[in-house]
Amino acid sequence: MVTETSTRPAGAIQRATIRDVAARAGVSVTTASRALNGTGRMSEETRLRVQQVAKDLDYRPNSMARGLVQQRSFTLGLLTDDTYGRFTLPVAAGLSSAMTDRGVSVFLSAGEKEPKRMQLNLRAMEEKRVDGLVITGKRIDRCLPVDVSSLGMPVVYVYSECPDGGIGFVPDDFNAAKMATEHLIKLGRRKIAHITGMSTFKAAHLRKAGWHAALEEHGLAPFGEALFDNWTEAHGYAAAFQLFDAAADRPDAIFCGNDQIARGVVDAFAQLGIKVPDDVAIVGFDNWEVFAKATRPPLTTVDMGLTCLGKSAGLALLDMIEGKPIEAGLRQLPCRLVVRQSCGGEASE
Amino acid sequence: MVTETSTRPAGAIQRATIRDVAARAGVSVTTASRALNGTGRMSEETRLRVQQVAKDLDYRPNSMARGLVQQRSFTLGLLTDDTYGRFTLPVAAGLSSAMTDRGVSVFLSAGEKEPKRMQLNLRAMEEKRVDGLVITGKRIDRCLPVDVSSLGMPVVYVYSECPDGGIGFVPDDFNAAKMATEHLIKLGRRKIAHITGMSTFKAAHLRKAGWHAALEEHGLAPFGEALFDNWTEAHGYAAAFQLFDAAADRPDAIFCGNDQIARGVVDAFAQLGIKVPDDVAIVGFDNWEVFAKATRPPLTTVDMGLTCLGKSAGLALLDMIEGKPIEAGLRQLPCRLVVRQSCGGEASE
Repeated sequence: MVTETSTRPAGAIQRATIRDVAARAGVSVTTASRALNGTGRMSEETRLRVQQVAKDLDYRPNSMARGLVQQRSFTLGLLTDDTYGRFTLPVAAGLSSAMTDRGVSVFLSAGEKEPKRMQLNLRAMEEKRVDGLVITGKRIDRCLPVDVSSLGMPVVYVYSECPDGGIGFVPDDFNAAKMATEHLIKLGRRKIAHITGMSTFKAAHLRKAGWHAALEEHGLAPFGEALFDNWTEAHGYAAAFQLFDAAADRPDAIFCGNDQIARGVVDAFAQLGIKVPDDVAIVGFDNWEVFAKATRPPLTTVDMGLTCLGKSAGLALLDMIEGKPIEAGLRQLPCRLVVRQSCGGEASE
Repeated sequence: MVTETSTRPAGAIQRATIRDVAARAGVSVTTASRALNGTGRMSEETRLRVQQVAKDLDYRPNSMARGLVQQRSFTLGLLTDDTYGRFTLPVAAGLSSAMTDRGVSVFLSAGEKEPKRMQLNLRAMEEKRVDGLVITGKRIDRCLPVDVSSLGMPVVYVYSECPDGGIGFVPDDFNAAKMATEHLIKLGRRKIAHITGMSTFKAAHLRKAGWHAALEEHGLAPFGEALFDNWTEAHGYAAAFQLFDAAADRPDAIFCGNDQIARGVVDAFAQLGIKVPDDVAIVGFDNWEVFAKATRPPLTTVDMGLTCLGKSAGLALLDMIEGKPIEAGLRQLPCRLVVRQSCGGEASE
């Protein structure tokens, strides 16, 4: 497969500099720079000549030099411990897209788990003089093991714990869970159980509270205790057997803490001959499409809008960098219910 | 939740500059710089004094300034169209980790699908003067819709098509499929079918060829034609029914083109009362753990080593940036078989 040898040394292709443009246009470097930035006073003829020369020479401004002048690098850092990207890549995509529109680039530091190495990455970003930092991760109640206190730059937290006085963006788990449960109630379900993830996760408690609140508002009692365990199919699978083996009384709906749990529940029901949604309606959480769409039947589920979280965080960070006043605190952004076939009723997709 | 107002203007915290260090240490800027870089000739006492002052002032070198001097920015760009990160985040994690060790940071441009916006991102990276570019994506036979011909910087391709004369890194699909099939043969299986993804994907053909080659080497005939369709559970599920409905003769093993297909096959068998691995052994591809581990039983599957691909590509790119000669062509890196319970035999995890 190896066919030829390429020996392109560093910097072999030399870009035209502002000096080259100035020389060719017969003006000073200052005038050339002002002509290209649209600042300063000069004849229209001079400005146009400089711009034409810049175009002819394929001159591109050096943003490192621009950064030194403006005391800004027009870069942000993104720090995460999410190696498989379930949460981080949608966040990063939203961030990166919104920043590109504003001429800002994003450094990624991904997949480090050791605090020491993560701190090293942070230091590297600092040396690159990033203008600000986005910290994200895999859960809303943990912060990455890095010390940002002496950073001297604005920081925002997305899908991560937000320290006191910090600025954070998370999905509104409570209201999303409430909305999911209300969807089941509207479809006529009255005995709604809840199977969810680990009780050490704040998200699990917020979602449980939303389930409770919706039931209470409609004068309904929760169907049994919430069943906490791993965020896995295996848990959903085992919990479904438990619910239907033990109880004489059976739920007519289950709100699940994530799509993997919901998938496990649906698979257990297939084995038990229980029909979804006819006998039991199921709602998931995450809208992780490879799971939600592949479940038989496809899952109605909550989409946390991670891309939008990334975008919002990036825009807030830019405001901070530009010195605009911005209120500290945690922003809980609304989620969206994606209606498929696991609850009956009319599917929207 | 909003509790206080933070109004940190841009640049409010002023970092000590090399000038501050020089002034405090009573030396010239040049001497201070040399003392910190470990270059130049001076007394050990002077060098130590400058270093102590730099420490006292919490001086950190400005890599933008360093970049201007050395004509390097010590940054790379990573361009991808993989929004959900299945392939890209492991690649990015391997790249980012290896680069951090070498003082190089990685700009991420993720999730843009429109060629126009992707080109815009590329232009932004160019303006940031990245030293090199990593292009990655979701399949080995497509290149991102960007024009890198006039970039004037080294480029490597990872999990992407590699143009003629380019330098690319992909998993060795052919030999991985051969290894997976040989695993089944070693366990005594003789009638090995193949269910795989879309026939428009090069990876599907390479994996099919590996399956064929292993069978041929052992004097075995393929069990029917390879069944191509979507890379989904739904395809695996339907294909499993097809295989067991139609044929009087039945396979004793199925090598699947990815883990989602394998999952669909196993689920269909559960419904048909066919035992995995006793009646039919199953191998998947991808080692996407949320699928592979959640399948009942957990899947034996191929791990493509995406993190390692990212690291290897990064190191090659650094060599190119430093002007070292490097052979053009496509590198096919070996994959690893992860043995779980879906084939019988002894599981390694």
